[in-house]
Amino acid sequence: MKFTVLDSDGRARRGVLTLRHGVVNTPAFMPVGTYGAVKAMTPQELRDVGSEIVLGNTFHLWLRPGLEVISAHEGLHRFMGWEGPILTDSGGFQVWSLGKLRRITEEGIAFASPIDGSSRFLTPELAMELQGVFNSDVAMVLDECTAYPASESEARDSMELSMRWARRSRDSFDRDNALFAIVQGGVYEALRAESLARLLEIGFDGYAIGGLSVGESKAERERVLHFIAPKLPAAQPRYLMGVGTPEDLLHAVVNGIDLFDCVLPTRNARNGWVYTRRGILKLRNAQYRRDLRPIDEECECSTCRQFSRAYLHHLQRTNEILGARANTFHNLFYYQELMHGIREAIHRKTLSRYVESFHEQQQRAC
Amino acid sequence: MKFTVLDSDGRARRGVLTLRHGVVNTPAFMPVGTYGAVKAMTPQELRDVGSEIVLGNTFHLWLRPGLEVISAHEGLHRFMGWEGPILTDSGGFQVWSLGKLRRITEEGIAFASPIDGSSRFLTPELAMELQGVFNSDVAMVLDECTAYPASESEARDSMELSMRWARRSRDSFDRDNALFAIVQGGVYEALRAESLARLLEIGFDGYAIGGLSVGESKAERERVLHFIAPKLPAAQPRYLMGVGTPEDLLHAVVNGIDLFDCVLPTRNARNGWVYTRRGILKLRNAQYRRDLRPIDEECECSTCRQFSRAYLHHLQRTNEILGARANTFHNLFYYQELMHGIREAIHRKTLSRYVESFHEQQQRAC
Repeated sequence: MKFTVLDSDGRARRGVLTLRHGVVNTPAFMPVGTYGAVKAMTPQELRDVGSEIVLGNTFHLWLRPGLEVISAHEGLHRFMGWEGPILTDSGGFQVWSLGKLRRITEEGIAFASPIDGSSRFLTPELAMELQGVFNSDVAMVLDECTAYPASESEARDSMELSMRWARRSRDSFDRDNALFAIVQGGVYEALRAESLARLLEIGFDGYAIGGLSVGESKAERERVLHFIAPKLPAAQPRYLMGVGTPEDLLHAVVNGIDLFDCVLPTRNARNGWVYTRRGILKLRNAQYRRDLRPIDEECECSTCRQFSRAYLHHLQRTNEILGARANTFHNLFYYQELMHGIREAIHRKTLSRYVESFHEQQQRAC
Repeated sequence: MKFTVLDSDGRARRGVLTLRHGVVNTPAFMPVGTYGAVKAMTPQELRDVGSEIVLGNTFHLWLRPGLEVISAHEGLHRFMGWEGPILTDSGGFQVWSLGKLRRITEEGIAFASPIDGSSRFLTPELAMELQGVFNSDVAMVLDECTAYPASESEARDSMELSMRWARRSRDSFDRDNALFAIVQGGVYEALRAESLARLLEIGFDGYAIGGLSVGESKAERERVLHFIAPKLPAAQPRYLMGVGTPEDLLHAVVNGIDLFDCVLPTRNARNGWVYTRRGILKLRNAQYRRDLRPIDEECECSTCRQFSRAYLHHLQRTNEILGARANTFHNLFYYQELMHGIREAIHRKTLSRYVESFHEQQQRAC
């Protein structure tokens, strides 16, 4: 792995991340391919909208189709027909999200598979083995996501467990691919700083911020991000996990973040919520029934070039697969165009104007 | 409308049908776009698999999105983003299929909309008006599908009503687009012949065979087809409605049919049933869990070039939209390639060898 910062504008940076399967221009948004497919999209379409890297969910792929099948394809790339870079999470967040259905010990996390009820036990070592078989370009350490709310003492215990798991992850990771660590510590600055210090001691290829967007307020999230993001090593990629809205992305880029993933653009698309330069448009609303305009008159994606809001409204009302497809294509195109604009703005040192203009535009009526 | 027969081989013919929105090479298969979208496909993909004409369902489009919305788009072409020829049915078959929920009189068919319960009344005149607003290249007369089983006297009454409706359809159709008639008469040869004679007296641009694939045996269907198909005017297109399997298509082409539509390839695709040169393959079956081969090793579609059976099995099991897409693309590619092969074989006067070879190949294991 190689990461080069090309330009910066304030804390924001534009860079190039070179991974085994290709090059990623940062700041970058990674569409989420939960089950080895970004919902409703083909690999070619992912390229067409401007994606250079996608995310795979270790938890979901481990349960279905399972290691054996992906191993038979020599990894996730051939399995899903995506030749570019892939980042996989460790599965920790999804297992943690099972709530009462899992039990966390020093050794790892025990849970019953929601698919077939089988007993499973996820350890840092197994998380590395799974991601090794997937042969993802970037693997993530196993961590425990700190609950929200959590007292400082609970957040400390949780963070310290994550740091021991980070050590074990590092020790058992035996691939040439990159391994990223995850900073925890809840909403407590001191714990965040301590978490980062411990991870730096171990040494990783990149650093992520975990445990945000789990229920805390926007103000808390921005406070933590503002505090910790600039402290992550400047020479390595910085990844804000599971975030977020276009506004969230802009705010994080301004604070120096390079990588993002989020299910919002794809999930919203399937529900008929589409992004425009004038805010979100809810296609199911009766007001679009006869609207001959495209989703966004300034958008040049294939959906906006072909289909009226009225047609997309109709596809949504009739649950046509083409509706999910067309909306997903548009939303990912929108996100990737946003990232492209961000990179251009950093290059030209006009990011603050770009952010301002974004917010101004969002105030207009759809 | 212009129809030219280029070659023939026995009763089978190869032709070119020129419609307002383009040219269709026959024998042709029309994918079904029920709600103004061929399920899971974009207009570009329909072209990519080799489709030159698609079918729209008047009944469904009338109820959703309704006339007003399609009229605002100046017809179905702009609404659905398909620039090629479109054939629409009259809606009669779908209303007839409502069973006890509809009431048929001399004037037309009364029914309650399954969408919103509103009272609707479909007449030959309204069926022409609807298809006029859709601006389909080929409209179909309103007919009553004869039930199966039906006594000869019931079949006669039904056929005679359809013939009166055909007359009214013709009289009220005031577009330049083509209008096709539908031969009824159930499984009774004499009634079929009489139906055709009456329609020829009125005069239409093309002739369809309706009322098959409604419960009769394969032997009965083939008997009726064998009897009536060659009697349809040789200089005009012949359309077998709602049929069928690849085997059905071959049998009908041999009997002189030029046009087909059927939901089988698209519906089967969504259920994970895909066509191969060795018969149907059911992707959900456990035997494909680790199968690295494409659906059909001889197929050159984008699905077969990209994805393994194991991956498609996985997409099917996880209900991923990409699975429905990839399977639909493959199945329609398969159907269009079959039609292409048929046209080539007629041109070379080797159709009987082509049919034989098809059946031989289907005997092999998948």
